Amino acid sequence: MGNDQRIAGISSAIRVIADFPKPGIMFQDITTLLLDVKAFKDTIDLFVERYQGKNISVVAGIEARGFIFGPPIALAIGAKFVPLRKPRKLPGEVISEEYSLEYGTDKMEMHVGAVQEGESALVIDDLIATGGTLCAAIKLLERVGAQVVECACVIELPELKGRDKLGEKPLFVLVSSD
Amino acid sequence: MGNDQRIAGISSAIRVIADFPKPGIMFQDITTLLLDVKAFKDTIDLFVERYQGKNISVVAGIEARGFIFGPPIALAIGAKFVPLRKPRKLPGEVISEEYSLEYGTDKMEMHVGAVQEGESALVIDDLIATGGTLCAAIKLLERVGAQVVECACVIELPELKGRDKLGEKPLFVLVSSD
Repeated sequence: MGNDQRIAGISSAIRVIADFPKPGIMFQDITTLLLDVKAFKDTIDLFVERYQGKNISVVAGIEARGFIFGPPIALAIGAKFVPLRKPRKLPGEVISEEYSLEYGTDKMEMHVGAVQEGESALVIDDLIATGGTLCAAIKLLERVGAQVVECACVIELPELKGRDKLGEKPLFVLVSSD
Repeated sequence: MGNDQRIAGISSAIRVIADFPKPGIMFQDITTLLLDVKAFKDTIDLFVERYQGKNISVVAGIEARGFIFGPPIALAIGAKFVPLRKPRKLPGEVISEEYSLEYGTDKMEMHVGAVQEGESALVIDDLIATGGTLCAAIKLLERVGAQVVECACVIELPELKGRDKLGEKPLFVLVSSD
């Protein structure tokens, strides 16, 4: 089946919920995508087809929805999965990055020793809004000497210009939500 | 490769960290398992070999580490993935269950409409301690008329007797940590 058809199925499986978590925000809910067995499989397949054979050794997933999409991709391309977590969740020694997001600020942590200097990494999240979360992820990976090959999200909110914030770092998305 | 060999590899890839998140707790850290490409794949394969062909239509994963193990299993057996989340994380209408855990209390939420009456569900988490979290998950699924076929975890802490709390509900674990 063609990419366009698969992407149309993925797009229509995503539910939009108004005013969550705050008034004025149109929340892109990927939980309905996870209920659509074909659309969820197509989502993972599209990422895997793009990244297999690219010598990516690390798939880093951002808590919590990046944990849903990252591991199936990592398993399929033979990479390790590195969870990037909210503060005080990772039990070992960590490095951390602060960032601002669409609604508030937060901190992201990565285990020391999870990623080695010179490794090629892919960063996964469900959605790019302002891009602050992905930038923090890139910084964490680059601080330990890894190269971030690309960031990949299911959904982009282009109005928030997160892509610009990533600078020259490539961003791949399946669905753009206007 | 035999199950015993695979389980030995999985067991040795899990790191134990003392006094996290509180003094006296020996935390079972599965992030090191995720760094071991073979051991992580073996983990998923062992679950998939057990559950494929069993007519399971729902894999319910408990936030946050159940999100890492659940989706690859769901994709492999052709089931949908249903995230069971902490309060105020799911954007749609939810039902919720309170529970007590090893250190504190919490509430678990599930989207209304995610699971239908009569469906067969598997509940996934990384670890069973006192069993409170898994019991809340079972209650949520049974409240909407689903049948919980089994609970599956990577690690069991048998001293905490979580298995007893599940009553007659089957529990499958890969590694028992004394």
